[in-house]
Amino acid sequence: MPESQQSNDLAVARAKATFPVAELTRYIHGSDQQAARRKELANLVANDPVFKRDGRQVAISPTKNNARNRNLMPLIGLSRVQEVKQGLAMSLRLYQLKEEHNLTKEEMLTCMEFVDETLPITLHETAFIPIIYAQGSDEQAKYWGPLAEKLQIIGCYAQTELGHGSNLSELETTATLNKDTDEWIIHSTTFTASKWWIGGLGVIGTHALIQARLIIDGKDYGAHGFIVPIRSLKDHRPFPGVKVGDIGPKAYGGFAKVDNGCKENMLMRFAKVTRDGQYIKPPHDKLAYGSMVLLRSTMIRAASLVLARAATIATRYTTVRRQFNVPTSRRDAANPKLETQVINYPMVQARILPIIAQVYATLAASKKMRSMYDDMLAELMVGDISSLAEVHAISSALKSTCTTLSATGVEDCRKLMGGHGYSYFSGISHIWASYVPSNTYEGDNFLLTQQTARYMLKQIKLATTDPDKVTPFSKYVIKTVDQDAFQAERCCVQDASDWLKPEIQLAAFEHRAGRFVVDLAVAAMPKDTIWSDLNLECWRLSHAHAQYVLARSTVEGVAHAMEQGLSRKTVLVLKRLSDLFALHTIQAALGDYLEDYYLSPSQCQSLRLQIKSLQTALADDAVTLMDAFDFTDHYLGSALGAADGNAYQHLWDTVQREEINQTEVVDGYKEYIVPLLTRHGAAKI
Amino acid sequence: MPESQQSNDLAVARAKATFPVAELTRYIHGSDQQAARRKELANLVANDPVFKRDGRQVAISPTKNNARNRNLMPLIGLSRVQEVKQGLAMSLRLYQLKEEHNLTKEEMLTCMEFVDETLPITLHETAFIPIIYAQGSDEQAKYWGPLAEKLQIIGCYAQTELGHGSNLSELETTATLNKDTDEWIIHSTTFTASKWWIGGLGVIGTHALIQARLIIDGKDYGAHGFIVPIRSLKDHRPFPGVKVGDIGPKAYGGFAKVDNGCKENMLMRFAKVTRDGQYIKPPHDKLAYGSMVLLRSTMIRAASLVLARAATIATRYTTVRRQFNVPTSRRDAANPKLETQVINYPMVQARILPIIAQVYATLAASKKMRSMYDDMLAELMVGDISSLAEVHAISSALKSTCTTLSATGVEDCRKLMGGHGYSYFSGISHIWASYVPSNTYEGDNFLLTQQTARYMLKQIKLATTDPDKVTPFSKYVIKTVDQDAFQAERCCVQDASDWLKPEIQLAAFEHRAGRFVVDLAVAAMPKDTIWSDLNLECWRLSHAHAQYVLARSTVEGVAHAMEQGLSRKTVLVLKRLSDLFALHTIQAALGDYLEDYYLSPSQCQSLRLQIKSLQTALADDAVTLMDAFDFTDHYLGSALGAADGNAYQHLWDTVQREEINQTEVVDGYKEYIVPLLTRHGAAKI
Repeated sequence: MPESQQSNDLAVARAKATFPVAELTRYIHGSDQQAARRKELANLVANDPVFKRDGRQVAISPTKNNARNRNLMPLIGLSRVQEVKQGLAMSLRLYQLKEEHNLTKEEMLTCMEFVDETLPITLHETAFIPIIYAQGSDEQAKYWGPLAEKLQIIGCYAQTELGHGSNLSELETTATLNKDTDEWIIHSTTFTASKWWIGGLGVIGTHALIQARLIIDGKDYGAHGFIVPIRSLKDHRPFPGVKVGDIGPKAYGGFAKVDNGCKENMLMRFAKVTRDGQYIKPPHDKLAYGSMVLLRSTMIRAASLVLARAATIATRYTTVRRQFNVPTSRRDAANPKLETQVINYPMVQARILPIIAQVYATLAASKKMRSMYDDMLAELMVGDISSLAEVHAISSALKSTCTTLSATGVEDCRKLMGGHGYSYFSGISHIWASYVPSNTYEGDNFLLTQQTARYMLKQIKLATTDPDKVTPFSKYVIKTVDQDAFQAERCCVQDASDWLKPEIQLAAFEHRAGRFVVDLAVAAMPKDTIWSDLNLECWRLSHAHAQYVLARSTVEGVAHAMEQGLSRKTVLVLKRLSDLFALHTIQAALGDYLEDYYLSPSQCQSLRLQIKSLQTALADDAVTLMDAFDFTDHYLGSALGAADGNAYQHLWDTVQREEINQTEVVDGYKEYIVPLLTRHGAAKI
Repeated sequence: MPESQQSNDLAVARAKATFPVAELTRYIHGSDQQAARRKELANLVANDPVFKRDGRQVAISPTKNNARNRNLMPLIGLSRVQEVKQGLAMSLRLYQLKEEHNLTKEEMLTCMEFVDETLPITLHETAFIPIIYAQGSDEQAKYWGPLAEKLQIIGCYAQTELGHGSNLSELETTATLNKDTDEWIIHSTTFTASKWWIGGLGVIGTHALIQARLIIDGKDYGAHGFIVPIRSLKDHRPFPGVKVGDIGPKAYGGFAKVDNGCKENMLMRFAKVTRDGQYIKPPHDKLAYGSMVLLRSTMIRAASLVLARAATIATRYTTVRRQFNVPTSRRDAANPKLETQVINYPMVQARILPIIAQVYATLAASKKMRSMYDDMLAELMVGDISSLAEVHAISSALKSTCTTLSATGVEDCRKLMGGHGYSYFSGISHIWASYVPSNTYEGDNFLLTQQTARYMLKQIKLATTDPDKVTPFSKYVIKTVDQDAFQAERCCVQDASDWLKPEIQLAAFEHRAGRFVVDLAVAAMPKDTIWSDLNLECWRLSHAHAQYVLARSTVEGVAHAMEQGLSRKTVLVLKRLSDLFALHTIQAALGDYLEDYYLSPSQCQSLRLQIKSLQTALADDAVTLMDAFDFTDHYLGSALGAADGNAYQHLWDTVQREEINQTEVVDGYKEYIVPLLTRHGAAKI
């Protein structure tokens, strides 16, 4: 293959785009200014030697001019000790960048995102500090906040235990008040009570925000947060009674077994313990939901961006990769002797385009989620908690569905890339391995669905008693009240083109989710029903609800883009993506729509046809739809997905730079290869 | 939690088994003798220090008594150079074990399986040697065979190129006959012609079996195999004109760019080139399918075993893990204060038990596949090639479906384990990362489905012209000929218990696959149809056919177990697994059965009920069903899935042994942590 073929292929693909890429970049990142600033920060990280990731050795040191330092480390295949050291070097470098370039804290966190590694400092910034402000009293916030902001102490958030993840109420760590000494005795009752998976704790944390069951006079008041000093600020050694360490590769998880008394502080914004040991209940137990909703809306945006990265790599590589030469129409008219670009196969389009549609749908849902959060916050300020429950239920449903979809989608992107997808240098392994735990942290994706289901049960009860009070995204349950009419509901599609009507798409999602709410309500009716026996029904319902929210957010997103004055061409491509997302999602669970005759066989046929034609219509835009996210090559971290399209050249170059390829004969030749080759005497050839 | 609780939980679970475990072990491994020998070999590997994998440092050296050697290496987080060295050490040790314990070659390969690492020597044994015998002339086999068997040369199989994986006919490497010198000039035409992903080539291979397009007098005769010396047997340095190296982490892939003339040998069992440069075509082009079928039947067995390992870990861990305390019936009657064992939740059972059923179904299919291969081989010996095409089509379908299911299943096992599933020490990461490439190698799982589809199209034609000639596993296409009758076919289930009738289960699979054959045939009818536009239809059909073969093999497996005189209890549990596999598989694609009214809504309801009740019936046997595979703790490689059930203790112990936890303060404290903590002066607290 001529060496320039791949870059040429990508240039040709870009020329075919039906819309102006800059407009979509603005849509994705909010404004031209925000998009530009984001790119500047990405380049700041990309150009810093400490954050290099292209396979060469990297210099790590605390000096400003890192390039000159000879303290070199290979980039992959680090031992855990080296990996930790590199993580520390990167952490320090981030704060140096902040000072050198006068970054705001938010900009520094954006840089941290572009570093694209779990760092030992991450949870200090994203959990420890926010929780001090959220859960500490004004006094506590004033004392601990600045210490943490200035990094004079480095903290972590210690909730999960070796034996307990999801179930907060059964944590085994206790905090017992010793009234004589006015001390809290923090105690890991058994080794399964050890705090585990605590980001930052293993290597860097000086303080831990420990969740422990509060015990006063033998009475258990449940889990509360305590700030506990873990390591001496003098020499970083753990305090007596504290055993602390690292839990293994990749994640910066640490563990701690704590058995010491300390005067330190229970966080007292909500619940309080008075000087004389009296426990005062928090005034309202749902206010803590607010920060959870914010965190989840961030996770939904991240779900879109992580899948966007994998899809960018897969789209570019399937555009430059050629395999087999098929007859006539799929062949490259200009170069009939060349094999066919992989992305021109309908089967490849049927795999990659729904993923691209999903990226945009998830983005639309994250925008919706964020605006719901902002509205809710404004209402909370004036004491109105009416939207809290719905927003929380939606955030649970979306977290579960979107992080599951994105993890699966990343792996599907890898499988689209043939054998090279498995190369470390494709970048997909890294994205996948660092992303997939999101399916379990911040609420296990299976357990979380119960939150949404419980909420929907309340809504369906409300529908019979007080239908006006049913919340905006749950209105569809009202139609289920008249069961005869509901069961007679049928999809209105007559022509294939009807499938492109948003009201028809949304009606299908509503009908299915409505049916699942009824099913769950019926199953939950008998008095002796065990709630956990209905987990499967909850799970089905939560995903159906999330899909409805995704589809509706996407439809509203298109309308909003039009209002904002985006060009017709851009709105058209967004509409196609919205349609593909809705129809592909319906098709993926077709049985649900057929089981009660909501869809007919001929509607299924026309659904499939419409999906195929949407895929054909979007194929020429695929590369540009992903270009619009404007990722740097550094952030993509992929030899195969580079913006210039020179996939094979980059893969070749990367491999040549590997340490192991600097010698002609590998280390171990004499000890192992020679004995193998000469076991029966040397060959006489 | 009391420290003995977990091992106690596992003991209690084992006591509840409804069948004798030894009987199932015999069923899985063929005979008591084979099962026992397998265990001996597994222990041989487990007890050898070179193959240690429990997190401690390991001694590597060529001496027999490795324990005394002080050449220690950490087990995880090796640099690529160290990783390669360790792979070489393990390779050598395997041949030492063979000699020390007088192992047969097959036993040595079984040991290699238990080492559970890709070794640089693997493809020498599993590809290079077999292909010399299969494709070399008698003379060539006699010359090269013993050299390779004695390891006096070490070879690799070099087909894939940087720019070409699936498409053999477009390989860019050429072998041009120079009649003057009687030499083949092997030439990597451009850098995308470099051989890539070649196991063993990067570090150890002295010879490569290179696939190159044969060119004589400017005429291209397509891809043929050539044995080409790559490295000097004196000093292991690459020969002039050969650039060779390693392609990166994990897989022992190498690359080579070859540009030299050599007298060496084109393999000439089939096609031949005479002294005077005349090309003689092979007599029959399908004979090479035989070894492909064998390889795939091995891959199907491997798909069962790899999923069995993950399922063993997940089943044991969900049995000892307790989370939340739910009311009444799910609670532990003996210890009402303990939280509920996770495996007692119906949602967990609904996820783990279908995976266990899948392990057994895949095993049954691999047995079927192997016996079909043996029968076919016997027929080929007497010149009968009648079964070749069907066996090949089934092997393609099963390879695609089973390796996809197992890779997905391994990841589902991880997600069943909560946060700890993501720990390296759960063992799942290792299993997943080394298994998932199987979805692409030996025939990309998407492309492969075209093979099956093409075959089924021939069968449906045959059904109209010569129905007696339709092959055994394709008989169902005959029923589609009378389209009116076929479209009127309905599932016969009336009571939920009807779902347990094998003939009803198989009829459903047949009907669905039959419908897909018709759909494909209709779509392929117009003359201007482009075959690659039908890839999606091929893919649907191939999976439907594979599911039918799996279900039928499982049903036949139960009948066979009964004939073999297995106890009623064991046959009953196999029957339940067979039922669960069939019904769960139908449910997972319910839309396909509803779309043409083959199933009714009430049948869907009773299907769900029956699946739930099968899961309940199998729950008490889960641990023992996986015990029956008789894996050693070493081979499982999991702190959480150890046979004694002490999951938390093993996780704790493993982490304590990690190098990074041998010091209280990490490397990098002075360079990075101190500057972070003192940027604004030390804290005054």
